[in-house]
Amino acid sequence: MKKYCFGIDIGGTTVKCGLFDVQGNVLDKWEIKTRSEGNGENIIPDVAAAIETKISEKGIEKADIAGIGVGVPGPVNEEGAVVTAVNLHWGYVDLAGEMEKLTGITTKVGNDANVAALGEMWKGGGEGHKNVVMVTLGTGVGGGIIIGGKILTGSHGAGGEIGHIHVEDKMDKPCGCGNKGCLEQVASATGVVYLANKKLAESSMSSVLREGEVSAKTVFDAVKAGDALACEVAEEFGKYLGTALASVTGVVDPEIFVIGGGVSKAGTVILDYVKKYYVNYVLDACKGTEFALATLGNDAGIYGAARMVIE
Amino acid sequence: MKKYCFGIDIGGTTVKCGLFDVQGNVLDKWEIKTRSEGNGENIIPDVAAAIETKISEKGIEKADIAGIGVGVPGPVNEEGAVVTAVNLHWGYVDLAGEMEKLTGITTKVGNDANVAALGEMWKGGGEGHKNVVMVTLGTGVGGGIIIGGKILTGSHGAGGEIGHIHVEDKMDKPCGCGNKGCLEQVASATGVVYLANKKLAESSMSSVLREGEVSAKTVFDAVKAGDALACEVAEEFGKYLGTALASVTGVVDPEIFVIGGGVSKAGTVILDYVKKYYVNYVLDACKGTEFALATLGNDAGIYGAARMVIE
Repeated sequence: MKKYCFGIDIGGTTVKCGLFDVQGNVLDKWEIKTRSEGNGENIIPDVAAAIETKISEKGIEKADIAGIGVGVPGPVNEEGAVVTAVNLHWGYVDLAGEMEKLTGITTKVGNDANVAALGEMWKGGGEGHKNVVMVTLGTGVGGGIIIGGKILTGSHGAGGEIGHIHVEDKMDKPCGCGNKGCLEQVASATGVVYLANKKLAESSMSSVLREGEVSAKTVFDAVKAGDALACEVAEEFGKYLGTALASVTGVVDPEIFVIGGGVSKAGTVILDYVKKYYVNYVLDACKGTEFALATLGNDAGIYGAARMVIE
Repeated sequence: MKKYCFGIDIGGTTVKCGLFDVQGNVLDKWEIKTRSEGNGENIIPDVAAAIETKISEKGIEKADIAGIGVGVPGPVNEEGAVVTAVNLHWGYVDLAGEMEKLTGITTKVGNDANVAALGEMWKGGGEGHKNVVMVTLGTGVGGGIIIGGKILTGSHGAGGEIGHIHVEDKMDKPCGCGNKGCLEQVASATGVVYLANKKLAESSMSSVLREGEVSAKTVFDAVKAGDALACEVAEEFGKYLGTALASVTGVVDPEIFVIGGGVSKAGTVILDYVKKYYVNYVLDACKGTEFALATLGNDAGIYGAARMVIE
């Protein structure tokens, strides 16, 4: 029986690292800088060195380590190779292979959004469930799908890319992906601001949102204060996201949706607006699907990465 | 090494039965009547007796049988129990358990749409793939999702229920499920007729569809003959289905969509209209997802049922 595992979350500016026991208790947590200069060729050796240092520091036997799990910001194939990761200046990188060569420890690799979903299933908002969809409402809308306790990667690494589900035929601006009318354009932090500015321009209603800069936070603060225009914006947000998550249920029928990311800091008011529309568009059997807020924040990645190596 | 398996597809009027070798060659194929009278309590004993008779007739050793796979028209839980099957007059039935008791042979049970998808993956339009979404365009729109060669059942047995993805806010009639604007209302055989009749009423264009009764077949026959109004109907159908399948890709990212059911008898013209819209709403990595017609017809169920017991 192995005792320990490492969870590594490689981001564009920092690499988050965690040492866990196999029950999922975090024993140590630290960060190193992501040296993405050049072709990002220092990143893997830096991570390997950080792990070796921690192993020495803690006096751990390598034989007691279940493995190293790594989350990366880009699509990953089934062999654990990164197809591309723009923020790391990486093209195709055999991350699992290189890490195993440097450390002699079994390594598994996943896309960061999928890995975060696995972390929330293990020790976060989805704890106790095996079929979980995580939705991250940040600058964009990310997603991760866990079926039977495992990440659904997809045939082109696009499993769980729910931010690019089409929800609005009338959208005139293109999404970052090049298409028009993606969920991300109306349900991310940026999307909420877009909806609010549109409403402010089209309506003559008074609103606290007319004073100062509009952000997802000011919109949901105004909703909590009963601002009528902000509430209309929240209804639109809820309709887009609730309808899209109903479509997700029509495909994978999860036990629970876990909602994270900056927008979710507004709290359960978000879930109320989403559920209101969700129930209109799912089969009776699914009207009771649970909704919860994510609880691990920026640590979801290291938890999920560690979980990948424990079966 | 086991040599044989049975694939059973229980429908409301007949039970289709197949004896296969484990390579997937059908050795015998027959039907019995579905005696659904009462609470359908004769169905399982009838199927068990049919299997016992076939085993004797062929002189097969039970030790050489990998198992019995059964598809049923209703949701099935992970233990192989049927939650409910209206057409069989069944409430909760422990089908796997009862069949094993009667025959002494390992039994696996799945929902019929999911089982058909597995059949098409094994020996039909999706052969050679492990991540397959099957869409059945019949009276309704059914779906089945295969990930890594296995059926995605869903937490409430609603995995792959893509006929109830919401696609039309302006739909005034309720769907059979009670919601409004489901894919099934506009992309099934019935849905195509609905779209055609709506177009005929709203437009003053001449069309061969104004003569005689409108069906999905007459619509797509008219499309092939270049009828302009019928082509507009096909565009609408393609937009609804193509956009919905793009959403499916944003969730599970399959290698291939396999399209079956009565409407698909129109042939590859269906795929052309669907793909035209699909590519607008998926990420670049997924624009090359394959589309194929189903090839097993009514036999998909027995193939998929048999496949369930072979790992």
